Amino acid sequence: GALGGLGLALGLWRRQAALSAAREEEEEEKELRQRFMAPPVSGLRELRRRRRELRSRMELLIMETQAEVCRALADLDPGASFAVDSWERKEGGGGISCVLQDGEVFEKAGVNVSVVSGLLSEEAARQMRSRGKSLKAKDGKLPFCAMGVSSVIHPKNPHVPTMHFNYRYFEIEEADGTKQWWFGGGTDLTPTYLNEEDAVHFHKTLKEACDKHDVKLYPKYKKWCDDYFYIQHRGERRGIGGIFFDDMDSPSKEEVFQFVKSCAKAVVPCYIPIVKKHCHDSFTPEEKLWQQLRRGRYVEFNLVYDRGTKFGLLTPGSRIESILMSLPLTARWEYMHNPPESSKEAEILEVLRNPKDWVH
Amino acid sequence: GALGGLGLALGLWRRQAALSAAREEEEEEKELRQRFMAPPVSGLRELRRRRRELRSRMELLIMETQAEVCRALADLDPGASFAVDSWERKEGGGGISCVLQDGEVFEKAGVNVSVVSGLLSEEAARQMRSRGKSLKAKDGKLPFCAMGVSSVIHPKNPHVPTMHFNYRYFEIEEADGTKQWWFGGGTDLTPTYLNEEDAVHFHKTLKEACDKHDVKLYPKYKKWCDDYFYIQHRGERRGIGGIFFDDMDSPSKEEVFQFVKSCAKAVVPCYIPIVKKHCHDSFTPEEKLWQQLRRGRYVEFNLVYDRGTKFGLLTPGSRIESILMSLPLTARWEYMHNPPESSKEAEILEVLRNPKDWVH
Repeated sequence: GALGGLGLALGLWRRQAALSAAREEEEEEKELRQRFMAPPVSGLRELRRRRRELRSRMELLIMETQAEVCRALADLDPGASFAVDSWERKEGGGGISCVLQDGEVFEKAGVNVSVVSGLLSEEAARQMRSRGKSLKAKDGKLPFCAMGVSSVIHPKNPHVPTMHFNYRYFEIEEADGTKQWWFGGGTDLTPTYLNEEDAVHFHKTLKEACDKHDVKLYPKYKKWCDDYFYIQHRGERRGIGGIFFDDMDSPSKEEVFQFVKSCAKAVVPCYIPIVKKHCHDSFTPEEKLWQQLRRGRYVEFNLVYDRGTKFGLLTPGSRIESILMSLPLTARWEYMHNPPESSKEAEILEVLRNPKDWVH
Repeated sequence: GALGGLGLALGLWRRQAALSAAREEEEEEKELRQRFMAPPVSGLRELRRRRRELRSRMELLIMETQAEVCRALADLDPGASFAVDSWERKEGGGGISCVLQDGEVFEKAGVNVSVVSGLLSEEAARQMRSRGKSLKAKDGKLPFCAMGVSSVIHPKNPHVPTMHFNYRYFEIEEADGTKQWWFGGGTDLTPTYLNEEDAVHFHKTLKEACDKHDVKLYPKYKKWCDDYFYIQHRGERRGIGGIFFDDMDSPSKEEVFQFVKSCAKAVVPCYIPIVKKHCHDSFTPEEKLWQQLRRGRYVEFNLVYDRGTKFGLLTPGSRIESILMSLPLTARWEYMHNPPESSKEAEILEVLRNPKDWVH
């Protein structure tokens, strides 16, 4: 009868709707797979389910940033390719490490995403936050979630600078259920030789990204960067800076996320043009040697001072290979190496000892 | 008259005695200069004046050890020579650094003596002592004296191991005038490839030096060495060990000094025969590469864990070039480098992960 026919039509319609939803989901997964270097740690379905939550949006942003940077680098170094490793953390979460090693243009380029969660001790939670806010735990343990994208690019040519960036998000749940959250990050440049034009381009691009949100941010985070990347025992900075910030939790979660997004989107435009410009520059063995000595300083900063590295090395269950991916392929230490006055080597040392303002 | 004659004779005798004392002193200084790489920090006259004090005897021992080791190394690398730098510490004392760089046999060999004194804060004094004994200070400051010889030898050939040794003496004066004193030190070997015969020779020579004083010392200090040179984040030791001790203050100052002297005298016989045996061994580019990766691990240990390096880097007025002299000339970090099973590279990793007893 009519009712039976209606039931049949309804059943058909339901089946078609289900089929089309499945197809849609499949398409979407395909699209997401093309967008990213590997499936996200939290899974696509889960990310879609809680698409409005900041955690999910941040995870998508760090995945997109990883893919964007890897593609831009791969385009410049067609002979080389990224090794992509997805790894899991026993205690919860995991990550995706993309590393290009011994290419034509890049000596070592790593872009790492990690999304970890679990329980923190009160002490570890305090250490995580540079301001050291005290957090109230239930039974001494605090549920947390930490995610970020971090990258170090060491090119072969001494006229192409090393670049580092890192954008991260933390959430900690206190005993009464309130959630503490904050963002951190930065992008900075470490040239072997000073090229003022490049320095200005790099800082200007970062300043523009910051200024869209608040003109007070660039000067503040530029200084923080100069202060953070200080190799105390050498009396010099690791590089010519950029921006660096931590514990950022105002004006609002949404606004800070938008700021972090602008910074992440600025990575490719602030760095890639500099690589393109210099990757075919000729260089002497002496210039290569100076690069190797500067690589040694990079290692000194990362192993002796960098909070992220130290925290990672001491955290049980962290993936050492992904943390130490930041170290250069090769480095050199000479006893009492002092470049002659008014040499190009002395020129870069001067700005490492006395940071300059590159844009106003 | 007779009295006048007597007076004249007495005058002559006095002059001759003075002349002969001056000549003796000159001869002695000449002899000491030949014995050492540079004049001792405390000055020869001062060392002679307080020749019975342990501080003076220890300073002579570390100066002698420096010269002995430098000469033995120079004999094996005739084309190269040691750069000798005497330096002063603004806050008191100084040192003598001897460095051979880029020789035929040695990539980088440094032997450093330092003799420093001054005032320590209670906090710094506590940190200095690994056991962390509390010390009673007058006005929060403690007069101290620290001296030692330390050395790292990085050879070029991957079949010649890296060797490190360090012997040191501390004195701290408490508010009531009592003097705390202790010795520390050790000698350890870091091969790129395992050679069991060499490992046994090295440990046997150290064991013999220890056994002369107390048969309990070698097993205790061998274990301390394996525990100390542990790269936690890699789950492996820096090398195949040797001996290590700190805070040694019994049975008596004299007996501990004699023990330290035996250890210092064992440096040349435990290491030099191994260098001689292998410095002309042929090697492949792959073996050189593995050496460079192991050099990277050496840097990781020294910058992340080594107490002496960390203490030095954080101490105002310390000489950075002498502290970081321990770093190799060149090092390498590859992402996810894992040697194949049952390779020679896996063989050394096995003993770095699970230390062995080389002598019984």
